[in-house]
Amino acid sequence: MSNNIAIDCMGGDHGPPVTVPAALAFLRAHPDAETVLVGAEDEIRPLLASAADVAGRCRVHHASQVVAMDDAPAMALKSKKDSSMRVAANLVKAGEAHACVSAGNTGALMAISRFVLKMLPGIDRPAICSVLPTMTGHVYMLDLGANVDCEAEHLLQFGIMGAMLAAALDHQERPRVGLLNIGEEDIKGNRIVKEATDLLAASGLNFIGNVEGDGVYKGHADVVVCDGFVGNVALKITEGLAQMLTTFLRQEFGRNFLTRLSALAARKVLGNFKRRVDHRAYNGASLLGLRGVSVKSHGSADVFAFSQAIARAHETVERRVINRIAVKLSELQAQRGLLSPGQDPETGENA
Amino acid sequence: MSNNIAIDCMGGDHGPPVTVPAALAFLRAHPDAETVLVGAEDEIRPLLASAADVAGRCRVHHASQVVAMDDAPAMALKSKKDSSMRVAANLVKAGEAHACVSAGNTGALMAISRFVLKMLPGIDRPAICSVLPTMTGHVYMLDLGANVDCEAEHLLQFGIMGAMLAAALDHQERPRVGLLNIGEEDIKGNRIVKEATDLLAASGLNFIGNVEGDGVYKGHADVVVCDGFVGNVALKITEGLAQMLTTFLRQEFGRNFLTRLSALAARKVLGNFKRRVDHRAYNGASLLGLRGVSVKSHGSADVFAFSQAIARAHETVERRVINRIAVKLSELQAQRGLLSPGQDPETGENA
Repeated sequence: MSNNIAIDCMGGDHGPPVTVPAALAFLRAHPDAETVLVGAEDEIRPLLASAADVAGRCRVHHASQVVAMDDAPAMALKSKKDSSMRVAANLVKAGEAHACVSAGNTGALMAISRFVLKMLPGIDRPAICSVLPTMTGHVYMLDLGANVDCEAEHLLQFGIMGAMLAAALDHQERPRVGLLNIGEEDIKGNRIVKEATDLLAASGLNFIGNVEGDGVYKGHADVVVCDGFVGNVALKITEGLAQMLTTFLRQEFGRNFLTRLSALAARKVLGNFKRRVDHRAYNGASLLGLRGVSVKSHGSADVFAFSQAIARAHETVERRVINRIAVKLSELQAQRGLLSPGQDPETGENA
Repeated sequence: MSNNIAIDCMGGDHGPPVTVPAALAFLRAHPDAETVLVGAEDEIRPLLASAADVAGRCRVHHASQVVAMDDAPAMALKSKKDSSMRVAANLVKAGEAHACVSAGNTGALMAISRFVLKMLPGIDRPAICSVLPTMTGHVYMLDLGANVDCEAEHLLQFGIMGAMLAAALDHQERPRVGLLNIGEEDIKGNRIVKEATDLLAASGLNFIGNVEGDGVYKGHADVVVCDGFVGNVALKITEGLAQMLTTFLRQEFGRNFLTRLSALAARKVLGNFKRRVDHRAYNGASLLGLRGVSVKSHGSADVFAFSQAIARAHETVERRVINRIAVKLSELQAQRGLLSPGQDPETGENA
């Protein structure tokens, strides 16, 4: 059976005009995949007019409500039971789809994913994991904002989940896991980071110790673990700085006739540079720790960026990431005597 | 009496070959200032051969020891009592200099500054405050690594110290103070940040509430307050990302003959861009909360960068930053009944 991805077509800043063409682009690039387009049927159908080539792999599922970007997560969960976001998650739960993707409200997607799909045994809340470009390749970083008051145990779980994701997506058996810290001396770091160091060192992961902020982009690790507060600040600092630098570069090239002329001369180089650091190519954050695949796209994603998020969901299913995480978590729990080896790692029930 | 800055000539990656020419450049740019060059006399003197023009404002003070970059702070404090770093701080304490500057080991400079200069009443540890460029000007950010396990009360103190520094250096009476957080909704943020919000709102500062990571570079605030762990990560993420982007840009322009030709055509624009984001211009972090002025230069600073750090120390003295901080702290303490209004704000003693 081919993978089927449920797409919340109503989420994000643009809705169907972006999400539907992105779904079609994804289907054209993945001849083995299917999608369910969830949302207002009257808005989605007209956008499928020119999609005869992939129509057979693209079903529309009507949903009457939309989660707004500023809806409180609890409200979205409680009073929007027919929202496109909720229905997409329901389809995963019911086994009609293998993953869901949304560019909507992050808090609502977390609450809905957690309520509908449930957490893996031993995990309390989903962690948000994104891929970022580095000097030498890319890095998986988590948590990026779901868990703001973390204990050391949570950081250990992030390490396991990030390592399994990296291992699955990059075919790399023992990705290097680093703990984000502020110095390489062990005298540095806050209390929780110090405790997490011991847990990670004993986890059986390929734990390489501390990584400093600059080490993230220097490619010092394949997976960087941090609490959701620090991770979110790091991600937003990155967005803000990148935007500032590109704005300054654009301003300098646009200053006068001569500088615009030199921009023309350098347009190929600038284009290559832009492609190389294009954040759209990295769109699609994984909500990890759930019993199903749920991927969050940036709210402002365009067609290319959103199709990348769908592709990430597809790959996550394809490479059986959830199963890998569940197995590794249960190994660790068994090792600690918290779960007997006979228990099913995905449900926590006895076999 | 003109300002006299004590310079630890031995600190940093380069030592006297950078610090001495930087001191001379500073003196030439500030005809009202004086310096004391502290360190190995036989290394410093030869570098003064061509400095007849400023020799009258430049005294050499021998120190027989050097704090190494990897010395443990406690060790540097205890067993290197004649280090150039320690002697520079001693000169400030003795009133022979108004400020000290060092590119040496951060932990040692903090420990020595704290031991020799002492903290202002009500402050436990120095906070590290740097200036960063933004889309609209610049921002003062603190703490950048001195205090990793902060309580809300510390964040309040950082707000006060940062605001007084910004007010003094930028002639801006009520700088906008923001608290680094991960969302604008009040449901977001960790426990300590939530508590700090209430303290800052009641502080009498121009507190504008939360600032997200991207808001730092968008210029949403004049002063951004955070704990030392988050601040250090933000600073290092900035360094790493900036380095990655400039490396990629250089690689793309250096790819072949044609791209190198276009770099030639764009060299003026690229030069302007580089100058605009030159981190060297922002070199010189203030250690705030002390009863004297102590400025930390980046270890890898070159002559231009180190002279900027000396200039920052000079300005900090000139604009009476310590006094402003002391007065504001004592106002706050009096308001809370912790210090009677008759007490001297700088010493804590009764007038």
